[in-house]
Amino acid sequence: MRAAAFLSTGKSWSKQEEINKNETPKCVGGFVLVHAGAGYHSESKAKEYKHVCKRACQRAVDRLKAGALAVEAVAAALVELEDSPFTNAGMGSNLNLSGEIECDASIMDGKSLHFGAVGAISGIKNPVLVANRLLSEAQKGKLSAGRIPPCFLVGRGAHDWAVGHGIPPCPSEKMATKFSLSAYKRNKRKMELAEKMDTGHNHAKKRRQSSETDNGSGCLDTVGAVVVDSEGNVAAAVSSGGLAMKHPGRVGQAAHYGCGCWAENAFKNPYSTAVSTSGCGEHLIRTMLARECSAALQSEDAHKALLEAMQNKFISSPFLAGEDRVLGGVIVLRCCRCVESPPSQNIQGILVEFLWSHTTESMCVGYMSAQDSKAKTHISRLPPGTVPGQCLAIEGGVCRLMSVAE
Amino acid sequence: MRAAAFLSTGKSWSKQEEINKNETPKCVGGFVLVHAGAGYHSESKAKEYKHVCKRACQRAVDRLKAGALAVEAVAAALVELEDSPFTNAGMGSNLNLSGEIECDASIMDGKSLHFGAVGAISGIKNPVLVANRLLSEAQKGKLSAGRIPPCFLVGRGAHDWAVGHGIPPCPSEKMATKFSLSAYKRNKRKMELAEKMDTGHNHAKKRRQSSETDNGSGCLDTVGAVVVDSEGNVAAAVSSGGLAMKHPGRVGQAAHYGCGCWAENAFKNPYSTAVSTSGCGEHLIRTMLARECSAALQSEDAHKALLEAMQNKFISSPFLAGEDRVLGGVIVLRCCRCVESPPSQNIQGILVEFLWSHTTESMCVGYMSAQDSKAKTHISRLPPGTVPGQCLAIEGGVCRLMSVAE
Repeated sequence: MRAAAFLSTGKSWSKQEEINKNETPKCVGGFVLVHAGAGYHSESKAKEYKHVCKRACQRAVDRLKAGALAVEAVAAALVELEDSPFTNAGMGSNLNLSGEIECDASIMDGKSLHFGAVGAISGIKNPVLVANRLLSEAQKGKLSAGRIPPCFLVGRGAHDWAVGHGIPPCPSEKMATKFSLSAYKRNKRKMELAEKMDTGHNHAKKRRQSSETDNGSGCLDTVGAVVVDSEGNVAAAVSSGGLAMKHPGRVGQAAHYGCGCWAENAFKNPYSTAVSTSGCGEHLIRTMLARECSAALQSEDAHKALLEAMQNKFISSPFLAGEDRVLGGVIVLRCCRCVESPPSQNIQGILVEFLWSHTTESMCVGYMSAQDSKAKTHISRLPPGTVPGQCLAIEGGVCRLMSVAE
Repeated sequence: MRAAAFLSTGKSWSKQEEINKNETPKCVGGFVLVHAGAGYHSESKAKEYKHVCKRACQRAVDRLKAGALAVEAVAAALVELEDSPFTNAGMGSNLNLSGEIECDASIMDGKSLHFGAVGAISGIKNPVLVANRLLSEAQKGKLSAGRIPPCFLVGRGAHDWAVGHGIPPCPSEKMATKFSLSAYKRNKRKMELAEKMDTGHNHAKKRRQSSETDNGSGCLDTVGAVVVDSEGNVAAAVSSGGLAMKHPGRVGQAAHYGCGCWAENAFKNPYSTAVSTSGCGEHLIRTMLARECSAALQSEDAHKALLEAMQNKFISSPFLAGEDRVLGGVIVLRCCRCVESPPSQNIQGILVEFLWSHTTESMCVGYMSAQDSKAKTHISRLPPGTVPGQCLAIEGGVCRLMSVAE
């Protein structure tokens, strides 16, 4: 499967190898790429998924146009994605084994390299805002008596910290939807049936059998976003209600450093990179997929790098040697300063390459630059006949953010 | 600072580049290296710290001699370290801001590359046993109805899962010690005083001032261990009560994949590696120190590799650019099959190189091979006059595990 370039670069641009660090001209606005999960997006709900991705892109671009940094814009996109009752994050999250909602979320700022995360948090409408607040509080330095501020809070403690920092609580029952409640009842029945059918079989056999009956890919639709702002800073975020029928207290990749999201400005590297993942949390944790993709993207060909990372560091990862189906997806962007070729003194820009790839049946994405009038959205699907968890799809595009030096 | 070789290799041994994979002779017993934290170990308590390290080594070696795999032996060492009221793990853990004990622990098996972790768990005497049980349950495959077993549980959910899997609960008040309770009262007074003194100052100033009054290095003594077994499998584990006066729900590096511990059998790499970290959780998370050290140890010179990793990936890490003192420590081992030089058909062995390094004032370690009659223990200290968090100490040794092929 080859990448399709949705946005062409138009004129010929080349990477700017040497840049005067004091002269970093502001480009127009920035760029955002969002996802509403790698999983299974039914045709009947495709419109809804696309619509929420569109709104999330618009929210981020509005913030970017108002001069916000990447990290603020990515948080704004996530709030919109969490607020949709169709996504498995914030409102409408999957219910756990006890019928409760427990969410994971994290955010990373490529400029400061700070990170904030919450795990198994209940009763907060927008978990990403707690993660973002942890990030910004940590940037302020130590607490009283030299205590180091936390970057990762879980459970009741995370909830209380959020409320103590002015984030309003939200009754859990308001976060469940008709859809999530009926899915819970359906899953509960399915579980009881599976356990009843297995009675009399030995434990190992029971486990193997049941693993063949369901690939669970309908329950993986975590959300996330990656952003580059007008100064070339990158940021990434991710939010998830977790696997349906998970054990209370289970924390997935969305709260795990290096696994749910990654953002790193170029510093000494050729490219700034941002990554957000979706899929089976345990697979994404054990392969540390976000950070692996970010590292891979420092090589010349972004498409080839991501393809190889998804094949070698995910599907065929030695860390998942025993797994028959490795389910997940990523959105990535990388960018560098570039100059028009032949070089012109007063036209510079940021070249943004963006891609998505998934081993799940489908993945819904949206993207928009501040120069666009509206977001483009797309549901990427594995080709018919291919096996989820063993094959992958990869697509992407290129966009340049222009600036005129004064 | 140079490494001191505590155990010499005796005869000349060379790495065995080509090994018949079907012929992996069992070596005698195995080897364990433990730590009782990187932090500050007072002379008055030195004896106690050394004593618990000795007992932990003995426990692991007992298991290894009984034929246990590395992952079982490392868990046994951790139980002993957690049970000591002197260490900040399990019994005697630091109290959080609410006066409660919440523990983090994780374990990684280099053979299966499985990982188990618990975060902010209360009322369980040995958190490492819950992490270990998560690891072994995950190895059994999927749960009923195709659900993927969790590798990371937190808070109340983690506690309930543990009890549901036969691990007995322990009343929290039994886990606090006279020492941890008096430290809590002292810290509480110090915090109140610091906050009172700062009244009237602006927030930023207050934070900066207070960070200079206390480096917190007395409260970092997480415990951990790394093991290689008779078959050459490696495993690593870590357990911590977390920072004193942490916010409830705060999870540190001990529960974080790639940050608290790492173990990876050689597979295609030259060496099997195992790492366990200690110190300021937030610094160890953001630098992913365990995994970075493991990756670094694949290069030729183990001592040089660890020294450079500690300097470039920890003290001078771009991820901690704003931090004035970067506090932490690691224990590492790496091993490979080796042959006697000149080669002898029937004498083979495993060459084990082990090291510890820390930027904290001190670090207490112990190590033992199954051939030893008792463990060696040592409190490593920064040289007088050096600044904790900016300088490091590094020491280690070499040991060979012999076998006679039948």
